[in-house]
Amino acid sequence: MAGNSFGKAFKITTFGESHGKAIGVIIDGCPPNVEVDLEFIQQELDKRKPGQSKITTQRKESDTCSILSGIFEGKTTGTPIMLLIPNEDQRSKDYSHIQDKYRPSHADYTYQVKYGIRDYRGGGRSSARETAARVAAGALAKLFLKQYNIEIFSHVSAVGKIQAPNLSSNNIKELLAIREENIVRCADPATAKEMENFIGVIKKEGDTVGGKIATVIQNVPVGLGEPVFDKLHADLGKAMLSINAVHGFEYGSGFEGSSMRGSEHNDIFINPEHSNKALKTLTNFSGGIQGGISNGMDINFNVAFKPVATIMRAQNTIDQEGNDVEITGKGRHDPCVVPRAVIIVEAMAALVIADHLLRNKAYQ
Amino acid sequence: MAGNSFGKAFKITTFGESHGKAIGVIIDGCPPNVEVDLEFIQQELDKRKPGQSKITTQRKESDTCSILSGIFEGKTTGTPIMLLIPNEDQRSKDYSHIQDKYRPSHADYTYQVKYGIRDYRGGGRSSARETAARVAAGALAKLFLKQYNIEIFSHVSAVGKIQAPNLSSNNIKELLAIREENIVRCADPATAKEMENFIGVIKKEGDTVGGKIATVIQNVPVGLGEPVFDKLHADLGKAMLSINAVHGFEYGSGFEGSSMRGSEHNDIFINPEHSNKALKTLTNFSGGIQGGISNGMDINFNVAFKPVATIMRAQNTIDQEGNDVEITGKGRHDPCVVPRAVIIVEAMAALVIADHLLRNKAYQ
Amino acid sequence: MAGNSFGKAFKITTFGESHGKAIGVIIDGCPPNVEVDLEFIQQELDKRKPGQSKITTQRKESDTCSILSGIFEGKTTGTPIMLLIPNEDQRSKDYSHIQDKYRPSHADYTYQVKYGIRDYRGGGRSSARETAARVAAGALAKLFLKQYNIEIFSHVSAVGKIQAPNLSSNNIKELLAIREENIVRCADPATAKEMENFIGVIKKEGDTVGGKIATVIQNVPVGLGEPVFDKLHADLGKAMLSINAVHGFEYGSGFEGSSMRGSEHNDIFINPEHSNKALKTLTNFSGGIQGGISNGMDINFNVAFKPVATIMRAQNTIDQEGNDVEITGKGRHDPCVVPRAVIIVEAMAALVIADHLLRNKAYQ
Amino acid sequence: MAGNSFGKAFKITTFGESHGKAIGVIIDGCPPNVEVDLEFIQQELDKRKPGQSKITTQRKESDTCSILSGIFEGKTTGTPIMLLIPNEDQRSKDYSHIQDKYRPSHADYTYQVKYGIRDYRGGGRSSARETAARVAAGALAKLFLKQYNIEIFSHVSAVGKIQAPNLSSNNIKELLAIREENIVRCADPATAKEMENFIGVIKKEGDTVGGKIATVIQNVPVGLGEPVFDKLHADLGKAMLSINAVHGFEYGSGFEGSSMRGSEHNDIFINPEHSNKALKTLTNFSGGIQGGISNGMDINFNVAFKPVATIMRAQNTIDQEGNDVEITGKGRHDPCVVPRAVIIVEAMAALVIADHLLRNKAYQ
Repeated sequence: MAGNSFGKAFKITTFGESHGKAIGVIIDGCPPNVEVDLEFIQQELDKRKPGQSKITTQRKESDTCSILSGIFEGKTTGTPIMLLIPNEDQRSKDYSHIQDKYRPSHADYTYQVKYGIRDYRGGGRSSARETAARVAAGALAKLFLKQYNIEIFSHVSAVGKIQAPNLSSNNIKELLAIREENIVRCADPATAKEMENFIGVIKKEGDTVGGKIATVIQNVPVGLGEPVFDKLHADLGKAMLSINAVHGFEYGSGFEGSSMRGSEHNDIFINPEHSNKALKTLTNFSGGIQGGISNGMDINFNVAFKPVATIMRAQNTIDQEGNDVEITGKGRHDPCVVPRAVIIVEAMAALVIADHLLRNKAYQ
Repeated sequence: MAGNSFGKAFKITTFGESHGKAIGVIIDGCPPNVEVDLEFIQQELDKRKPGQSKITTQRKESDTCSILSGIFEGKTTGTPIMLLIPNEDQRSKDYSHIQDKYRPSHADYTYQVKYGIRDYRGGGRSSARETAARVAAGALAKLFLKQYNIEIFSHVSAVGKIQAPNLSSNNIKELLAIREENIVRCADPATAKEMENFIGVIKKEGDTVGGKIATVIQNVPVGLGEPVFDKLHADLGKAMLSINAVHGFEYGSGFEGSSMRGSEHNDIFINPEHSNKALKTLTNFSGGIQGGISNGMDINFNVAFKPVATIMRAQNTIDQEGNDVEITGKGRHDPCVVPRAVIIVEAMAALVIADHLLRNKAYQ
Repeated sequence: MAGNSFGKAFKITTFGESHGKAIGVIIDGCPPNVEVDLEFIQQELDKRKPGQSKITTQRKESDTCSILSGIFEGKTTGTPIMLLIPNEDQRSKDYSHIQDKYRPSHADYTYQVKYGIRDYRGGGRSSARETAARVAAGALAKLFLKQYNIEIFSHVSAVGKIQAPNLSSNNIKELLAIREENIVRCADPATAKEMENFIGVIKKEGDTVGGKIATVIQNVPVGLGEPVFDKLHADLGKAMLSINAVHGFEYGSGFEGSSMRGSEHNDIFINPEHSNKALKTLTNFSGGIQGGISNGMDINFNVAFKPVATIMRAQNTIDQEGNDVEITGKGRHDPCVVPRAVIIVEAMAALVIADHLLRNKAYQ
Repeated sequence: MAGNSFGKAFKITTFGESHGKAIGVIIDGCPPNVEVDLEFIQQELDKRKPGQSKITTQRKESDTCSILSGIFEGKTTGTPIMLLIPNEDQRSKDYSHIQDKYRPSHADYTYQVKYGIRDYRGGGRSSARETAARVAAGALAKLFLKQYNIEIFSHVSAVGKIQAPNLSSNNIKELLAIREENIVRCADPATAKEMENFIGVIKKEGDTVGGKIATVIQNVPVGLGEPVFDKLHADLGKAMLSINAVHGFEYGSGFEGSSMRGSEHNDIFINPEHSNKALKTLTNFSGGIQGGISNGMDINFNVAFKPVATIMRAQNTIDQEGNDVEITGKGRHDPCVVPRAVIIVEAMAALVIADHLLRNKAYQ
């Protein structure tokens, strides 16, 4: 059953395979009169695109995005916005060796059984290439959120066992500047260097490694999120878990919070000087969300990525006929996915916040 | 905007406040001709109900469920099934002291700002009492899944810092029997004892503590889950994160997987003796899901719960007018929520699997 | 697949069979702080309830509605509102004669094939009794729309070949008063008398007859309705066609409009004296909707009902085993459904307008 | 709020403005392994495209459709199918005269108020050009329905006051051949001639005229349609009413049925020779649908179109500043829309049937 849409009020529908003609997205429900900065959208795509540094896949895709509808004289019109990204540098023959083999920990086998057919070239629809469409849509959501001064920041907090220290600042513009100075996209320069070296080693060994991304969202108004099923963090969690290779999500105190006591975990309110201000709390173990609804504090969450499944080493596997075969990764792949995934995480977060911002208007 | 429904094909809509007349659920989309064992539904509710042991809240609710529609001569008819659970033992006066105070780490403040009105008695809609409706619906989903031999098992894997060892068996019936022998609902008797003692101490101190629940699902056919947004684990994650107090979700290798290498993380296929059998893998770091689609292996995931916010100690807080006030927990509350939450986790898992089982039929 | 919900932002889910324990509805998405006048809801139900006059079915149902959730101190809280209407006067034995017979032009055969099981008593879920839940939900939607001064009026415009003249007034309060003075619910007293007599004759003959209902909606703000698929009139049409026995829907110029020329059909704008007023048009062939969006003029539409299928005469039919059998209507049925359906049409119209009113807020 | 999608299991999302770069559609949920005949899709588009005969608009659009995703080696893969139709022959300057004028009975005014911005060129999103995307998606739905032998046939049954007689055959292939022999697309050659002449006269007068389209659908299996809100005819009605210029929908006995008696309207079952055959009925006033569910008989319905609003005559109207202005239609427009709309009606019908066919699988 149809499952390629996300969001209810600010809703996206993506399409496209890794080696098809194009990928893209329709954004339905974006309010009118949002100024569309196409250059910004392209910059966001550039942060995700392959071939951007020595530690990413060398596939050459410009990921040039064109807008086919929904914009008039530089502004959104309230009608569906179609963003199209042609595929340029497919090398489908890189994949002929896996035409009837099931790559371990890939979606080859499950797609084949589910559909009885699959576009094996580059992983088809299961390719992370699909996330470029999300980044484009997320960039538009960010432009919309700018009207509310809402800012989203993600960075690589771990590569393998290398963990970044806690963020040294809560100024997102500052953090962004630091992050973009290194190719790992970690906001701690020393750790970034260490991570970069480690990814280099991993790559040389033909191996891959997992990692983590930490996110903070600022200036979210109080009241976003629907109680019960569509809690704000439940939708953030689903959004993150829908990104390829994500194996875990936690917000606020997260998994560590499960070993805490209520007396230390409760976030005590601070008396605001002026009554019309949003309340603040002394601590923020709630991660900016209480009862599924934003409370005005910073929203923060962590996402865990497993290592990329395609490795440049020989592995045993099975083909469609059930024969034992050997397989070695070809094509151009990332040794570690998190540096590029940073922008995907931000995009999905922006889409969730935009969606709940619109949903909440029904009560106002 | 409306947000009290979950699922697309096997869809539930819940209603009810902690201190209203009743809570309940409509299940829409359950296939016809499922045998409805009302006794089983009641047993499931009994595992969640308050007052079941010395370590749970002493509110006395029989949680007696009646079926108002959708069943004819003991079988589902394909029409909406309405399950009603009246509230019996509300003590609303226990809550008059918080009528205009915001309890720390509760939903009082966010509901008030979002809606401009709230039913403060017992937390209203934000009360965990709402989960009884989910358990009733989940029990029905389990009865439907029995037709496919699908089994779901959850248990308490951690209370505070006390961690249970890995499960000693993969026989769910066996594990269930062990789990139900202790009031903590941990499938390792020695750890259960330790947890029980610790919860007793915590309770005596007027404090609360968090915990974790581990789940395994067996006999899920290959092919459930939609690629991209409605990945099977993304929907499981959203389901879990929608449960009160949940702060984290991970499946398969989870957060630990982020520090692994691809060469150790990849799940190698085992050659099946007969080609018509589903493929198995040597390891199961994928947690039974590849590319968002079930691969026939056991599905497993962990859920982290924060400590209950209501503690029996004095805390500083703020009232609706912005005055500093002191608050002390009254009412009847759990010192640790995970023993009762085990059945809620199972229920939500059953609802997700049932939903995707029906959704997948569109391709068959 | 689940199909018992209607609306996206103001969303209802109904349940219940004719001879089950109860019917009812969950309203999800109603904004908070709407004053709930339970007496008004009951009055609306009384206009639909059976046994209200000599020309309706004599089944005795008080249709007493209770609210189980979502209301606090007389106001909506923004959480799901559950309205429950117990069944009281089922005479299931009236239906034992059709247990395995397919009544002509009923849903017996189609339900049996679709589900392989059916609750034959009183038509089960296919009974018009389900519409009581819609009327209760519609009454709540009307209470919400009162905040916007939006008024909805339906009346019986035809019974068989007897047609009412055009409405003599556009004052809805006046029209309502006239309509409620007769049991047919036609706003033209002379025609009402004629209709009443005709229905009496039809009833005596053990037969039934169809009819039509005309509706006008006033004070709808400009801008409701989404372009393309969720046009305001498309959702009104679906709402009406979902009512039992409805075979046709037209709005504005309707079927007659198809024989007109553009030069006579176009609604010319009138220059408003003050620029901040909504524009009016000289004529209203557009029925208050242009491009699927309300234009501020009165919205008007007609709904056609087929004659009730249950007649008190012998008819040939077939049983589940394929034998020829004879069947004669038993039970208590309406000779003409439109006098009671007036309130159902109003209710569904209120639900559509409330839904689009909330949906439109996403653009504001 | 997002409203550019249609269908739940076989779901389409359209985008594009009349004078933007392109229009198109994503089809999500189409089952895998449907053979995609691109030539057939193009033939369907050719029947809708402008400039096809002397009685249609002379805008020159080849409406060439390309498939950007979801197809592999000529077959659907179960992933989203993107169909793109570039705009080629926009003459936006034809519309500069209406930049700030509200055309009577158009969507100019309502869009402006709803969104505060509009793409006035060619009507933007409100243009009937959007329906090309529906025709492309409908063609794909027809290819899917071919697997079930389901056939859909529409033709022009009225132009102005000229009515076609009842169809002389129930052989759809035969009827299609007759219909395509004339440019009006009426399956009665004599009436077609009369209609063609009348449209010629109307065109010469710079005027437009409405019309009606009749449809029959054959070989629909018993059981499609969900009771209560998503009745098969309610979804067909919504689909038709969502087409530009449609003012009315009726199925089966329709508006005429409202003047009939139950004793003449009831469809009596015919005893099938073999018990495993679907039951037939003597008459078909139910239009192939009972209780909202298909009963295996031919489904038939009528759709009423108002006259096109753009006429080549001077009309008084108002501009955005509230000044009285005169306006005369420019651009290239149809004097009568029904000959091209025939294929749009078929497309929307195919989409509804495909959607309910998949939805019904959840019960099987």
